Amino acid sequence: MTLYLTHRYHFSAGHRLHNEALSAEENRRLYGKCNNPNGHGHNYQLEVTLAGPIDPATGMVCDLALLDRVVDEAVLTPFDHRNLNLDEEAFRRRVPTTEHLCIEIFNRLAGKLEVETPAGVRLARVRLEETSLNFFEYHGEEKNIQGRVRD
Amino acid sequence: MTLYLTHRYHFSAGHRLHNEALSAEENRRLYGKCNNPNGHGHNYQLEVTLAGPIDPATGMVCDLALLDRVVDEAVLTPFDHRNLNLDEEAFRRRVPTTEHLCIEIFNRLAGKLEVETPAGVRLARVRLEETSLNFFEYHGEEKNIQGRVRD
Amino acid sequence: MTLYLTHRYHFSAGHRLHNEALSAEENRRLYGKCNNPNGHGHNYQLEVTLAGPIDPATGMVCDLALLDRVVDEAVLTPFDHRNLNLDEEAFRRRVPTTEHLCIEIFNRLAGKLEVETPAGVRLARVRLEETSLNFFEYHGEEKNIQGRVRD
Amino acid sequence: MTLYLTHRYHFSAGHRLHNEALSAEENRRLYGKCNNPNGHGHNYQLEVTLAGPIDPATGMVCDLALLDRVVDEAVLTPFDHRNLNLDEEAFRRRVPTTEHLCIEIFNRLAGKLEVETPAGVRLARVRLEETSLNFFEYHGEEKNIQGRVRD
Amino acid sequence: MTLYLTHRYHFSAGHRLHNEALSAEENRRLYGKCNNPNGHGHNYQLEVTLAGPIDPATGMVCDLALLDRVVDEAVLTPFDHRNLNLDEEAFRRRVPTTEHLCIEIFNRLAGKLEVETPAGVRLARVRLEETSLNFFEYHGEEKNIQGRVRD
Amino acid sequence: MTLYLTHRYHFSAGHRLHNEALSAEENRRLYGKCNNPNGHGHNYQLEVTLAGPIDPATGMVCDLALLDRVVDEAVLTPFDHRNLNLDEEAFRRRVPTTEHLCIEIFNRLAGKLEVETPAGVRLARVRLEETSLNFFEYHGEEKNIQGRVRD
Repeated sequence: MTLYLTHRYHFSAGHRLHNEALSAEENRRLYGKCNNPNGHGHNYQLEVTLAGPIDPATGMVCDLALLDRVVDEAVLTPFDHRNLNLDEEAFRRRVPTTEHLCIEIFNRLAGKLEVETPAGVRLARVRLEETSLNFFEYHGEEKNIQGRVRD
Repeated sequence: MTLYLTHRYHFSAGHRLHNEALSAEENRRLYGKCNNPNGHGHNYQLEVTLAGPIDPATGMVCDLALLDRVVDEAVLTPFDHRNLNLDEEAFRRRVPTTEHLCIEIFNRLAGKLEVETPAGVRLARVRLEETSLNFFEYHGEEKNIQGRVRD
Repeated sequence: MTLYLTHRYHFSAGHRLHNEALSAEENRRLYGKCNNPNGHGHNYQLEVTLAGPIDPATGMVCDLALLDRVVDEAVLTPFDHRNLNLDEEAFRRRVPTTEHLCIEIFNRLAGKLEVETPAGVRLARVRLEETSLNFFEYHGEEKNIQGRVRD
Repeated sequence: MTLYLTHRYHFSAGHRLHNEALSAEENRRLYGKCNNPNGHGHNYQLEVTLAGPIDPATGMVCDLALLDRVVDEAVLTPFDHRNLNLDEEAFRRRVPTTEHLCIEIFNRLAGKLEVETPAGVRLARVRLEETSLNFFEYHGEEKNIQGRVRD
Repeated sequence: MTLYLTHRYHFSAGHRLHNEALSAEENRRLYGKCNNPNGHGHNYQLEVTLAGPIDPATGMVCDLALLDRVVDEAVLTPFDHRNLNLDEEAFRRRVPTTEHLCIEIFNRLAGKLEVETPAGVRLARVRLEETSLNFFEYHGEEKNIQGRVRD
Repeated sequence: MTLYLTHRYHFSAGHRLHNEALSAEENRRLYGKCNNPNGHGHNYQLEVTLAGPIDPATGMVCDLALLDRVVDEAVLTPFDHRNLNLDEEAFRRRVPTTEHLCIEIFNRLAGKLEVETPAGVRLARVRLEETSLNFFEYHGEEKNIQGRVRD
């Protein structure tokens, strides 16, 4: 019996889409106004989904306070009210597109949650909304797909 | 050809998270302010998803009036403007966490919908939002997973 | 030059609409399902609006951290995850309708904010949403209306 | 490594649910007020989800400008501010239920996107919201289900 | 002591913006795609605001069931799932812009509410949202403005 | 007969709250994480409200296409996907708090709209939402308050 539990979080960050391997002209064509040299920013809405059985002792899949603490340490503290390009080592050499940010968040959370959550509970999905008109989802690597068909 | 049809419903209910098998101290640590002795409450947002083929005679998966009637009888009438702990037999011995409430709603609906909906239509998902920051999803038991990989 | 600054807050509480001065029959007719003996509850969304000039030293009307602290002390701590009827002295003898709750919140905030906010800043409005379909607003007593025509 | 990218679009259209093969009486019973002879209309919210790997040169799954152009040509131009029954050949003989509209949109997009998007990127889902209380999703034909279990 | 109470309602309707006193060319220039000959439609969101004192016997400004009944009779029954141009006498000779619809709704409600609501309660505002990007508000005629400065 | 017409717009921008007249220590205390040296950013939601009579020839207060063009030129083009501190002359010497941004937008729009809108139509309000939890409103200078009591 698997339940999916999702918590929403918000953070605001600045970024600039610019690939140093490309010319100024190619960057402008590729990223449009997102290539503005001085950057811009967004209110990101993050949804973190855990999948697992209900613990019969508590009636819960996972203590939300635990999840909040892990997301706070792994995502909100480093990203909220920061400039992704300049303040984050992870985006020094990778363009901080929402795709890359979504995967970065999944990987940071997956490692910590594997240690902290009860046995049988796993990170099933990260969904990252950049504006009210676009969002991105990542469910982890394909290799374990047999065990994850329900995500 | 499978289509997924979802209808949203709202109900307001009171509850208290408290496990009688645990000490007062353990309950406070586990459920925090949700353990307040006099309870509190929420506006729950419920999404019920049916999966099925389109009936060529109507162009619809399922008459929404039928779905509304079943949800009204099975969920809204017993739960709306009620206290889940005190007014509902189902939560006399189970803590009314949103996880338990989500599964309870799924099971009540699944039984009735199997009888009432057209052949080939099944309950695919129940999603229950407790606040604007957290929600829960249940897709039914794992056993039928082969036939349900797309939920 | 007056600017209006609004901050949104959320709290979840239980309540029961019941007037002890009326008969059981009258209470049921008047409050309908809100009169359920064991109560129910809501996710309340609160908006607090301050009006005032911009402080030229900061470019702000009021430090939001100050406003958050006052709202936390005066409203969120006593009301969030509580039963309004049973946990709050203020509603022992007044029915906790959203109208009464809205005025109670305004009056609690007005007193504290008068002391804490910069000169010229005043509480202009409290807006309380009980469900996504209904909300209530209070702007304070009429007496000062001449100075408040713009609320 | 598969990422899911979703873009939201809005269009407003009129329609009438009426099946010419049925009697007036049967149409009224089946479609209720949606059978009103002069029609009515909705603000439709459309979500288009692409699935694919991240292009290492850009850090993106697909250029959103390309997706916007395809959706504009295939969906928004023909449907926005139109009457689905009278202005659209596709609904001359099919009742414009949201189910049919959802599949029509999926099929129009799938063909164009297969040609225009990078290799490995495919249309994974179309979600169409008719009102804030009901929405429909289509993931394409079942035949390719093995390769699509993660949608 | 005046409180403002607002209830939200939804209805879906079709319309066409077309002024018979103008040429086809002028209509197209003026109303753009809203002039499409076969019309289109919207999900309208309506907010009705009453202002008044709290009745000490009930703790409420006005029984919401009374307001719901009046809005149902005066607005939802005639407009929901209708074509405003063809099904409504009021828009035979007036273009059903959202401005005109907003005033029509205010006037229909004001007359009925004056009779039905408790003394001291008045219709303060009608707000009509045509899409998520535009809305209209009407507070009634200017003549009574002295007594209404707080709306 | 005055109607209020509001259009919503969205733009994303970066900013940093920092007052050069204050010490680094004072800036950190005053602006908290908004003082991060490399800045951050937001999705701003802007509402522009015009007040005026209905033009009997069109049934509208103001052509929305005209309003959109003015907002695009005066606000969206200079601010969307820009860094407010570095890309905007207006914020070289004024801290780009949302208060200042709200007034800057009002003043830019008021001048242009006075020239472009029909006689009797005026800018009544600018509302700027920085995050889903806080927003700011400005109605213009006090001096004309007699003629504006209804805003």
